[in-house]
Amino acid sequence: MHLFYQPDQVSFLTEDDSRHAVKTLRLGVGDGIAVTDGHGNRHSAVITQADSRRCGFRIIETQTTPSRPFSIRICVAPTKNIDRIEWFVEKAVEIGIERISFFFGQHSERRVLKLERIEKIAIAAMKQSLQSYLPQLDEAVSFSDLLETVNDEQRFIAHLPDNSAPTNLAKIATAQRRYVVLIGPEGDFSEKEIQQAVAAGFQMVTLGPNRLRTETAALTACQLLNFLNV
Amino acid sequence: MHLFYQPDQVSFLTEDDSRHAVKTLRLGVGDGIAVTDGHGNRHSAVITQADSRRCGFRIIETQTTPSRPFSIRICVAPTKNIDRIEWFVEKAVEIGIERISFFFGQHSERRVLKLERIEKIAIAAMKQSLQSYLPQLDEAVSFSDLLETVNDEQRFIAHLPDNSAPTNLAKIATAQRRYVVLIGPEGDFSEKEIQQAVAAGFQMVTLGPNRLRTETAALTACQLLNFLNV
Repeated sequence: MHLFYQPDQVSFLTEDDSRHAVKTLRLGVGDGIAVTDGHGNRHSAVITQADSRRCGFRIIETQTTPSRPFSIRICVAPTKNIDRIEWFVEKAVEIGIERISFFFGQHSERRVLKLERIEKIAIAAMKQSLQSYLPQLDEAVSFSDLLETVNDEQRFIAHLPDNSAPTNLAKIATAQRRYVVLIGPEGDFSEKEIQQAVAAGFQMVTLGPNRLRTETAALTACQLLNFLNV
Repeated sequence: MHLFYQPDQVSFLTEDDSRHAVKTLRLGVGDGIAVTDGHGNRHSAVITQADSRRCGFRIIETQTTPSRPFSIRICVAPTKNIDRIEWFVEKAVEIGIERISFFFGQHSERRVLKLERIEKIAIAAMKQSLQSYLPQLDEAVSFSDLLETVNDEQRFIAHLPDNSAPTNLAKIATAQRRYVVLIGPEGDFSEKEIQQAVAAGFQMVTLGPNRLRTETAALTACQLLNFLNV
């Protein structure tokens, strides 16, 4: 069953999904589809109007998936090569994440991030992995502004192994909590940023013995926290 | 310190690394470099000849890293879009893996895999993550031929959640073992392949509740087995 995304309470698919359903998949009136609102509701529906700009559907039944008993938030500095951060978003959404926040650090080379493209990737990954929740995506802000937004229980800042952070995230994170992990840019966090984070209640952790790229570190933290809750 | 790769017992860098060291990094005679043989040995060395085709070096001291007390082998069917499998190789090498084997399944759309490019990516990832071991990479073979090569202790076959495999890999893999995990193509394994694997001592496992792409499943298995040994 093809899964589509319609966040609004309307009885037709978005323009992108309408085109995909009618033009690409050649679905017609009476064909069954699945539609998620990205907030845990998944509708079984049938197409009532095969319009490639505004494909109508009628809901037959709705299944609501409860949200997870834990939440993972990764805050990451966009990489110089944008493909890498887009790749992280796709993979993190596939395996499971509640919120992705972006920030520009003192050592960030990239100072611009278009969230629209990132959102498209997240939506595609949600559909592809057949999930009913679309993670929250936050516009990139400064590191200080980011810290202002943190209200998560367990707070971690990933730091390169050769600096003073001997504790592996796997050893100190505990199950069923609301986690937030900060992942620095290619140039790493500045000393000032690390101090700010520690002052804001973040614990310094490593994600393993190897030096990881920014996007690899971000995904590894997300994977680890998911496994912790298996 | 820049890390280079020279698998042979010679006192000069490969042509690629020579060009990178002399042309790109502009290193000269007397500059210090690090050189790994990909088998656990890491040499501290100095450049003796700044030749961009054949950069000579003299070893000052050698550090040998013992191999890990466990080993991870992932056998994966190359994806239709080769970028995805290349991405998996880069990430798996970064986080830690001993061996990557490729196979063509009954439902594989891709029937060709150039190992040379994959090797370049693995070498770059080993250097980038500052490791001294280069994982073994095996040429793609048929699924039956692949099973012939399996001598690993703990054997798992990742299978889509909606099929009969309720056990998560995290629940049955144990620490400090030699693992092998089979990851199917986009079209999944055929029933025949699953039966062959089970007959060869593989246990069916899932990697989480979501439907994962081939390369995501492969990396997730690798991540999980690494975490199991933290």
